[in-house]
Amino acid sequence: MLSKARIKFIKSLQLKKYRKQEQCFVVQGAKSVQELLRSDFETLTVLGTAEFLATCPPAGKAEVLEVTARALEELGEFQTNDAALAVARLKPNQPLTVGATEFALALDDIRDPGNLGTILRTADWYGIRKVIASSETADVYNAKVISATMGSFTRVQVYYTDLETYLPTAGCPVFGAFLNGANVHTTAFGARGIVLIGNESRGISATLAPQVTHKVTIPRYGQAESLNAAIATAIICDNLARQKSE
Amino acid sequence: MLSKARIKFIKSLQLKKYRKQEQCFVVQGAKSVQELLRSDFETLTVLGTAEFLATCPPAGKAEVLEVTARALEELGEFQTNDAALAVARLKPNQPLTVGATEFALALDDIRDPGNLGTILRTADWYGIRKVIASSETADVYNAKVISATMGSFTRVQVYYTDLETYLPTAGCPVFGAFLNGANVHTTAFGARGIVLIGNESRGISATLAPQVTHKVTIPRYGQAESLNAAIATAIICDNLARQKSE
Repeated sequence: MLSKARIKFIKSLQLKKYRKQEQCFVVQGAKSVQELLRSDFETLTVLGTAEFLATCPPAGKAEVLEVTARALEELGEFQTNDAALAVARLKPNQPLTVGATEFALALDDIRDPGNLGTILRTADWYGIRKVIASSETADVYNAKVISATMGSFTRVQVYYTDLETYLPTAGCPVFGAFLNGANVHTTAFGARGIVLIGNESRGISATLAPQVTHKVTIPRYGQAESLNAAIATAIICDNLARQKSE
Repeated sequence: MLSKARIKFIKSLQLKKYRKQEQCFVVQGAKSVQELLRSDFETLTVLGTAEFLATCPPAGKAEVLEVTARALEELGEFQTNDAALAVARLKPNQPLTVGATEFALALDDIRDPGNLGTILRTADWYGIRKVIASSETADVYNAKVISATMGSFTRVQVYYTDLETYLPTAGCPVFGAFLNGANVHTTAFGARGIVLIGNESRGISATLAPQVTHKVTIPRYGQAESLNAAIATAIICDNLARQKSE
């Protein structure tokens, strides 16, 4: 049985305010908890069904409790979470620098948690390990973000900062998607850089646009006015990665 | 003032059962309602703020009512909908055939409305006008799907059917993403075909896999185990479209 205090504590972490105060976040679902336990995050508590715990990776110093699927469903934010839930320590918001042969993403106010999670998962697929996010970007420790990353939150670092200050100090080309840029299929991306992704509604903000050194455009063959932000990120990453590997 | 009966009717359309019974669906938000009015859908009712109605396209035979932003917020399913809402007639579920120089998508149980909407928006960007969806795929007239299409629901046709029966009769190559397929960057897609997109959790189902004539793989450069279904669709479409245009 879980104590009322523990249930209250875990539920409180649904809010960013309490995640910040407690320096903890919640990871839900079997796959995500498994990835967490294999990562360098400090896991404090693992709650799992008997079935999950029988196959779960070593939990280190974490407290492990067997619970019912029903208890998990009541505790979590998602209906489908009936195998495991963990509480882990937040990582400090550490500055990231772009290496000599590396690409990073910069996110200009990505507000939707699902989009942010999908962007991190996509970055991980394409070998991008660093994401610099504006302060208005959704919180990476939001449960919907963690869930949408499908475990990639353990491999992609996110650093929140003011992009207007950060970008000029990065010392590398900044690529950004605009309607009047160079064709992304034929753009020479070079060895290193930052790909700046604009907000879902307004695209790249007017204050950041002057910092884009290379405007790129995803060719359109139909009639939609725009692409979803995570989709545009993926198309750019695919074109970038194929070029680096050629 | 909206009557209680009208409010009840509009809210009932949040459920597929009532959409089917009434043969009506709801479109929310200024951009989506504008696209609806410019399309060949039959619009029955437009509710808009004075500001929206002043700039809205001709509404044809539709009944037009001025309402407050607050009334719209209470009526709609989304907090951000404060400009317009429309009720339109469903289109019949008409069989689609793949033209001689055309590509279509087939969706094998895409369950998430956001994913389905994003897939339709992406298809529209890449000039794909036909989507054949399995019966278990989310309903295109679900408000979350309509919203995520950003108006593309007016240009991309969706036909729900049993894919196991449909695919053999389509008479064209079927491309599907697997881990052991040909590199999507170098695959020759040819002039026509169907791109089969697998379910979010299990990928392409075992019953449909034998119908895939061309297995393709999106190269991975990092560590994520998989890509989101809408992201994978977009990468395949981008590679397909660049080849067709070359």
